Amino acid sequence: MYKERIRLASLLDKVMPAEAAAAMIRDGMTVGMSGFTRAGDCKAVPQALARRAAHEPLRITLMTGASLGNDTDKMLAEANVLARRLPFQVDATLRRKINAGEVMFIDQHLSETVEQLRGRQIAPVDVAVVEAVAITESGGIVPSTSVGNSASFAMLAQKVIVEINLSMPAGLEGLHDIYLPTARPHRQPIPLVSVDQRIGLPFIPVDPAKIAAIVITQKDDSPSNALPPDQETRQIAGHLNDFLSHEVRSGRLAPSLQPLQAGIGTIANAVLHGLIDSPFRDLTMYSEVLQDSTIELLDAGRLRFASASSVTLTSAVYARFLADLERYKARVILRPQEISNHPELLRRLGLITINTALECDIYGNVNSTHVGGTHMMNGIGGSGDFARNAHLSVFVTKSMAKAGAISSIVPMVSHVDHTEHDVDVIVTEHGLADLRGLAPRERAQQVIANCADPLYRELLRDYVTRATRRGGHTPHLIEEALAWHVRLREQGTMGGTKVALAAA
Amino acid sequence: MYKERIRLASLLDKVMPAEAAAAMIRDGMTVGMSGFTRAGDCKAVPQALARRAAHEPLRITLMTGASLGNDTDKMLAEANVLARRLPFQVDATLRRKINAGEVMFIDQHLSETVEQLRGRQIAPVDVAVVEAVAITESGGIVPSTSVGNSASFAMLAQKVIVEINLSMPAGLEGLHDIYLPTARPHRQPIPLVSVDQRIGLPFIPVDPAKIAAIVITQKDDSPSNALPPDQETRQIAGHLNDFLSHEVRSGRLAPSLQPLQAGIGTIANAVLHGLIDSPFRDLTMYSEVLQDSTIELLDAGRLRFASASSVTLTSAVYARFLADLERYKARVILRPQEISNHPELLRRLGLITINTALECDIYGNVNSTHVGGTHMMNGIGGSGDFARNAHLSVFVTKSMAKAGAISSIVPMVSHVDHTEHDVDVIVTEHGLADLRGLAPRERAQQVIANCADPLYRELLRDYVTRATRRGGHTPHLIEEALAWHVRLREQGTMGGTKVALAAA
Repeated sequence: MYKERIRLASLLDKVMPAEAAAAMIRDGMTVGMSGFTRAGDCKAVPQALARRAAHEPLRITLMTGASLGNDTDKMLAEANVLARRLPFQVDATLRRKINAGEVMFIDQHLSETVEQLRGRQIAPVDVAVVEAVAITESGGIVPSTSVGNSASFAMLAQKVIVEINLSMPAGLEGLHDIYLPTARPHRQPIPLVSVDQRIGLPFIPVDPAKIAAIVITQKDDSPSNALPPDQETRQIAGHLNDFLSHEVRSGRLAPSLQPLQAGIGTIANAVLHGLIDSPFRDLTMYSEVLQDSTIELLDAGRLRFASASSVTLTSAVYARFLADLERYKARVILRPQEISNHPELLRRLGLITINTALECDIYGNVNSTHVGGTHMMNGIGGSGDFARNAHLSVFVTKSMAKAGAISSIVPMVSHVDHTEHDVDVIVTEHGLADLRGLAPRERAQQVIANCADPLYRELLRDYVTRATRRGGHTPHLIEEALAWHVRLREQGTMGGTKVALAAA
Repeated sequence: MYKERIRLASLLDKVMPAEAAAAMIRDGMTVGMSGFTRAGDCKAVPQALARRAAHEPLRITLMTGASLGNDTDKMLAEANVLARRLPFQVDATLRRKINAGEVMFIDQHLSETVEQLRGRQIAPVDVAVVEAVAITESGGIVPSTSVGNSASFAMLAQKVIVEINLSMPAGLEGLHDIYLPTARPHRQPIPLVSVDQRIGLPFIPVDPAKIAAIVITQKDDSPSNALPPDQETRQIAGHLNDFLSHEVRSGRLAPSLQPLQAGIGTIANAVLHGLIDSPFRDLTMYSEVLQDSTIELLDAGRLRFASASSVTLTSAVYARFLADLERYKARVILRPQEISNHPELLRRLGLITINTALECDIYGNVNSTHVGGTHMMNGIGGSGDFARNAHLSVFVTKSMAKAGAISSIVPMVSHVDHTEHDVDVIVTEHGLADLRGLAPRERAQQVIANCADPLYRELLRDYVTRATRRGGHTPHLIEEALAWHVRLREQGTMGGTKVALAAA
């Protein structure tokens, strides 16, 4: 059955068990694997690596597109295979090892990893391991549900291992558009000027002689674990819809808005979902991941076209997607993440970007990554690529976490991933702060009044009042700026109620 | 004499005194003025505004390219003309008013101001005031020593006031290349693929009917106030030269390197100056401002071509530049700052960017703007545009300030302008930390060992050791992270000597 998936007959003798393929990966190597937001990750070779590590030393640098599914990062972390990991992850076990200093994690803008590879600024990829649905007559690799960094990994690596996943329909071929920036100097402009444009090939072009092994698998991607919208995420979506409607009425946006990007996860998915009930038409997406909301917006006739680097759906919606693949393929393109996230294209297209904040401060700085300023959650992912170059950069968060013990709106964020220069709008379930064209003192008023939970508003106002007496463009009481995080650490609450404050 | 500078005869009757032109600017208006790093600013209309403000209410929003010379910001601030100011400034009086909350200052990436204007996300420009050396037969405005945002201001404004500065040689015509991104949707790629390419017009095309006034002036730009290299800046230059030489030997850079960008000011100027004694050849620059060092590198035969948005020189070098203008014009282009700083072009060209930090932290975050986390110094300028999209993003700083009372290397910066994701290399007079591909814990070791002054090294190591015991991807003692800034504020020193520490 797999033979029709390997259309270059001379490669048929490269088919081998995962163990044999994995043997090409040796201790100390750098490995580039497919996988982006749980989609299109390798299903067999990493497992074989983990098994081997039980009885011989095997520590590698693992690069991927973004996060992996199938507990691969967990398994590799537990087997101590990961010496170094980049550029993103979402696994609880790996996270523990990163925060314990046992795995060196390099948290990068998702558009930049392959630039650094190409410039040999980080260790070169020894072996690429790429999931595919087919190999073409010319030896081209047809990716599965994500492109991520697979194209660059395969093209730059010494050796390529292809995992042909038979549980992925062959009909995925034609979904992808593989284009990579040309070499410097005299790199040419990337010719993309609209989200639905194809500028590359439907496969990853590699020298077939580099394909050192082919492993046959039959296993699904891990389904999306985004939660359905709840009352608060619906309120966030409502505030954003109202704001965008106002922008349309004011003539600043067309009724089709601008191409949309939304980060991975529950809140951003809910916000996109909320557009189903919006007045906007002929929407487009230029994002890094397509979630359930994308399919729903396509089905509801709101969305005209979606471009991304991966498709990550819940099981039910994935079944719908596969059942009607040809129809969706006319309205969806998957691209390398360097292209889905490229500053050149993002600035040209002028996106409305919607990303999730861990916490925001009153002056508009955003922490996306570090709990308490120290402990890595997942990574910055593509949020920096998108927010910096957006036409309109929106960050969403619930105003509180842990039943109110944590305010997501704080005097000073404990780690900065997105500076005040890159944040246009902040939305919580309470409302929306439009920070465009405002000085920091003005922003603080907006953020406190519109976004903070009432439990914390007076505390924030009191902070600003006292800080402002001391002066400054961005008033702070520097000795108190992180006191909320200290209180949380020592007392389990940021001190949101007057009672807790009095006790502090 | 001025008549030959106004080649569209129908505009000759628009010549009027500065007061009459300034009368077109009314209370509450938004005014876009030329001027970038002291170069090519208006010399008469702002002065007339300040005089008028003495006897009638006159408060405006003032947008420029970047900083102004001729004490214009001081004069306007003292006259209380400035309600709102963007996107950059360097004036001491204005700075005081900004920090007192009397002027609302919006500190922006220099590539973004006109994007926001074009999208009507900030108040539209009512009147543009642009210094020029001539008006062409078609009514095109030929800028003087900077382009900045002048082209977009003139093209987007209701009315345009042109200041023809007779002290600027007419021979500056031909130095400029005016291209602006086309409209969305379907904005086209910017066709520039090499630093010496001309893609636009030698003048700003405007409808002559919009030119409401022409004012004749005769006044020089304020000369550059960059200090000559000193021992420490020479050491910084030496460390960077050694590093770049190593990159060339390793095959990661060509002997002509990549196009260079250097921020305004003494340290960056000294670093470029240091390239005169380097082994590199056929260098190019793609920067926002050309300083003395550019002319020296051109004259020394090291630099092949320089592109920027302004020329800001000391008096002696300026005289040299003017005396040999035709020769320099063959090797220098001035562009709109949106183009000199455009993410599309910076990522395509792959720059080596050299910008100055106020302070860096051990994990690679950089503060470029806020003294003590609160008080604005100048603004982020173009450093964010360049650092984010660089091939190699370098930040330079002396390791200490105020005779050692301040360490420029701190546990946590008090304000973040450039995140850990955007900083590849940090250089002080003590050495260079190459942070590429390192996790935060590894970066801290490099930065402390190579960049911190010995006076502060043990204190930093002690901090890291204690923080690391607590764990985390980026170890911090959150209650102590800003303690150095608190100590500076309260005791006048960050506690660098053991004596001062013991006293603390």
